[in-house]
Amino acid sequence: MKRVFAAAATCAALCAALPAAAQFAKPEDAVRYRQNVMWLMSNHFGRVGAMVQGKVPFDAKAAADNADLVAMFSRLPYVAYVPGTESIANTKALPEVWSQRDKFDAAASNFQDKAAKLDVAAKSGNLDQIKTAFGDAAQSCKACHDNFRAK
Amino acid sequence: MKRVFAAAATCAALCAALPAAAQFAKPEDAVRYRQNVMWLMSNHFGRVGAMVQGKVPFDAKAAADNADLVAMFSRLPYVAYVPGTESIANTKALPEVWSQRDKFDAAASNFQDKAAKLDVAAKSGNLDQIKTAFGDAAQSCKACHDNFRAK
Repeated sequence: MKRVFAAAATCAALCAALPAAAQFAKPEDAVRYRQNVMWLMSNHFGRVGAMVQGKVPFDAKAAADNADLVAMFSRLPYVAYVPGTESIANTKALPEVWSQRDKFDAAASNFQDKAAKLDVAAKSGNLDQIKTAFGDAAQSCKACHDNFRAK
Repeated sequence: MKRVFAAAATCAALCAALPAAAQFAKPEDAVRYRQNVMWLMSNHFGRVGAMVQGKVPFDAKAAADNADLVAMFSRLPYVAYVPGTESIANTKALPEVWSQRDKFDAAASNFQDKAAKLDVAAKSGNLDQIKTAFGDAAQSCKACHDNFRAK
């Protein structure tokens, strides 16, 4: 397991196309990294959602700031789904993340695209545009969770 | 306790000057928020540190990407040190965060300044500048931890 992880980490370190290439001292760090990012992303996404759902008053600047963070966070977690982390005790990532990696990467890419569009919509300050973009992003969260995350 | 927290959360929500004003459903969320941010910031700071210390080869783009994330993360955690979270079981934040709030805010601000300077240095691509800026930032981490974080 450790050798597989080390090889994957080396591979990730060489992948210069990735922003902030993943380098984790141990598999547990990779799991914690992606979990922390997902939790924070969900927190900021939820703050936009509260406005979209009318639970808190619409604040264009807060919506834009939060959507900007969601888009930033959306670029971070996927490099941390390195092989060797599928058996870490507290991960909810299903084996399909690795056995259907192309499908997982496509789902991740789709979400990143929808998060970027939410960011653009939020910068417009138009609540209707934000509602539509938020719904699309939420659907892409769910699609990935349905297939790749334990309930 | 809950009333204190609710009042603080309302106060934070009204503070429009803050980026992504803090809104947490419960005190535990505020603690988890700041812990997750600190952990991720430390992870990316460590990646710059590994280059500064010669443990991994210097890669100007990776240094710039990671320093950029450190600067971004440095802007997030402090709004989550809301009153009512000093007694949450797993926090390492000392009571001095609240009893010496001005000093804590100054330390936080100092770190944000040093993180921004590290970001500028990293964008220059000059390893010597990065080393100096990294050392300054590390010192400002330590100064805040020494006074406001349990060992």
